Amino acid sequence: MPRSSYRLPKIPEMTIRRLSVYTRCLLQLEEDGVSTISSQELAERFNLNSAQVRKDLAYFGEFGVRGIGYYVSGLKAELQRILGLDREWPVALVGLGNLGSALFHYKGFSRQGFRIAVVFDDDPAKIGRDIEGVPIVAARDMAREIKARAIQIAILAIPAESAQTVTDQLVAAGIKSVLNFAPARLRVSKDARLKNVDLSIELETLSFYLSQGGR
Amino acid sequence: MPRSSYRLPKIPEMTIRRLSVYTRCLLQLEEDGVSTISSQELAERFNLNSAQVRKDLAYFGEFGVRGIGYYVSGLKAELQRILGLDREWPVALVGLGNLGSALFHYKGFSRQGFRIAVVFDDDPAKIGRDIEGVPIVAARDMAREIKARAIQIAILAIPAESAQTVTDQLVAAGIKSVLNFAPARLRVSKDARLKNVDLSIELETLSFYLSQGGR
Repeated sequence: MPRSSYRLPKIPEMTIRRLSVYTRCLLQLEEDGVSTISSQELAERFNLNSAQVRKDLAYFGEFGVRGIGYYVSGLKAELQRILGLDREWPVALVGLGNLGSALFHYKGFSRQGFRIAVVFDDDPAKIGRDIEGVPIVAARDMAREIKARAIQIAILAIPAESAQTVTDQLVAAGIKSVLNFAPARLRVSKDARLKNVDLSIELETLSFYLSQGGR
Repeated sequence: MPRSSYRLPKIPEMTIRRLSVYTRCLLQLEEDGVSTISSQELAERFNLNSAQVRKDLAYFGEFGVRGIGYYVSGLKAELQRILGLDREWPVALVGLGNLGSALFHYKGFSRQGFRIAVVFDDDPAKIGRDIEGVPIVAARDMAREIKARAIQIAILAIPAESAQTVTDQLVAAGIKSVLNFAPARLRVSKDARLKNVDLSIELETLSFYLSQGGR
């Protein structure tokens, strides 16, 4: 089916998240030389729920083949296309402190096609320099750079105090998606999408199991 | 009901994750002076699914009161207890590079009761010093420190190459839960629980919406 030829039904965000997980499982299977797999086997091998797998995939089409299951490479490519991972996304990184530097070097982003194309920071010692070939630009030049580079995604790694102001500037400059690491409740206009990363949620899952006395 | 008096049924990890989210919503309501709320209102206000809220909570008991809904403070306290957030957890941070430093300063951990009690690093320039009062200790002294401080949770912020070796050492030293930021597929024995944080999954949710042409 041609891309974006129709509006998809409202899809739960958790389904999208799981598609990312399925894509990683399929990549692993591909590396292991597995060419076809049933939803049952997929679920067992990666500790997923097979009914959930089928339901999630059903939002996007009919991928299983009776008596065979899924074609690993074909399904992986299809999921990558659905997730927008069949292209490269230039990304703006805002803030080059400890977290910003860590995110800059995080291998997982580029592996999935997210390429940090520009870094914004207000430290005069950093402005005008570059980090591994990527220019470090003053925040006041945000609008110009974002437009010139046609950037739609920004990663926010700045203190909570300035996060809302900077987010407003980013969205005004044309940013459509903000991944926020600042511990701040931010608002964006209807033209943009915001995703907050709350790292302590991951720890809470672990403390739940510890305090239940299980593993 | 008394704590850990019986084994809970197998609870989906996504339910645990959502309990963390509900706890944050209830905290917000409490700050806003709201004392009771129905599952319907809760769902509308925080863009949740009310049937899902009821189903998730039902694993742990009967929290709603007919004609009233939930008592905000009471439910919040109950969820915090279930998540093990009614106590302080000493945590070991392994690796004090960019990501480790960022995680050390991440406010969200301590706010939820996770206190970094010791940092392990192999940089001779760091060993023996402290960071904001927290000792930086050589990795070879891991076992001694973990036992002495009765630490059960470790955060891994080291390169992928050494992640498996260090994880094995941590588990051997008594660590029960590992939160892994290294881009490596790790294995732990049955005595321990491992949680991988894959930061690119968050970006993929955003690229999905961008490539669907929606918001």
